[in-house]
Amino acid sequence: MSKVVLYMSMSVDGFIAGPDDGPGRGLGVGGERLHDWLGAGGIDPGSYRPAGDGPSASVFDEMMATGAVITGRRTFDLAGGWSGDHHGGVPIFVLTHAAPAEPAPGSARYVTDGIDSCVAQAKAAAGERDILLHGAATAQACLRAGLLDELELQLVPVLLGQGRRLFEDLPPDHVELELVRALDGPAVQHLHYRVRSEG
Amino acid sequence: MSKVVLYMSMSVDGFIAGPDDGPGRGLGVGGERLHDWLGAGGIDPGSYRPAGDGPSASVFDEMMATGAVITGRRTFDLAGGWSGDHHGGVPIFVLTHAAPAEPAPGSARYVTDGIDSCVAQAKAAAGERDILLHGAATAQACLRAGLLDELELQLVPVLLGQGRRLFEDLPPDHVELELVRALDGPAVQHLHYRVRSEG
Repeated sequence: MSKVVLYMSMSVDGFIAGPDDGPGRGLGVGGERLHDWLGAGGIDPGSYRPAGDGPSASVFDEMMATGAVITGRRTFDLAGGWSGDHHGGVPIFVLTHAAPAEPAPGSARYVTDGIDSCVAQAKAAAGERDILLHGAATAQACLRAGLLDELELQLVPVLLGQGRRLFEDLPPDHVELELVRALDGPAVQHLHYRVRSEG
Repeated sequence: MSKVVLYMSMSVDGFIAGPDDGPGRGLGVGGERLHDWLGAGGIDPGSYRPAGDGPSASVFDEMMATGAVITGRRTFDLAGGWSGDHHGGVPIFVLTHAAPAEPAPGSARYVTDGIDSCVAQAKAAAGERDILLHGAATAQACLRAGLLDELELQLVPVLLGQGRRLFEDLPPDHVELELVRALDGPAVQHLHYRVRSEG
């Protein structure tokens, strides 16, 4: 059964980007600190694979084995749409309010009829494989809709102080999590949570 | 050498209390969820010791072995000043802008000349033992002043959605941490960080 899994690198104070993120500076001022656990990389997301075969490489490989990607429009645009191929040519579903005139590049497509439809389409496309979810706003939309199955957070030992938070503007209903795996990589903790319930 | 150690229970989304915290509701609406890893307890903080001798009890014992307490006025008042004795009669330094007319109860005293003085007094009083720091505002003041040595965070597997954040309104200078111990208790992770540097 395909699961929707949020993959995000987050500082101990809850930020996924530094201040003033925007075009040409997707991770904000100083936010690249959050990706120190990844390799140097290039345009292809797969090129960021951490060296060796430790926990960080293993978690990265799990991410690259997913069968579909869901992302918000903002994350997608800041990443240059990954030139239409996030990894292995799997379909990329870009949640947006209004699709631009240009069709989405490569294996990407815009989804304008909401998060439920977006998740349903991604599940149909991913088959038995999991779905990689990226981006704070889309994660929040999934949480609000009760559609997030798991979180794989890379907890980075730094306080950024300011920036964009992963969890913001959620309703006051508790979302109970269960820690199902904790791996200590060099300079990062990989915390895998299952969403248990809401309320 | 005495160290200033922040002890706080925090949700995965960074909250240390639910919404609308205030007199009679120190942890806010639903915020008591963050203390589920503690025992039922009573007025005396020591009565919250987790049962058994697992990691949670061991971390709790470390907290109760500290030689002084630093707390903000807000936390102090919400806790009823711990009736003047947080644990073992060690001195309690209450950081505040203006001391009330009534003297502080028991082993507590108000400190009105700033965080530097507060930490210096606590270090002198604690001797070789560490200092227990409590409260979000005081933690932020310590961080800004470069006076926080370590953090022992109880990371609770829940998203509260709303409430009072531990890290808020800090400057954009990065504070680098080093994870020196990670203990998985039942239903809580005890993450011990050393503050490495700022900037």
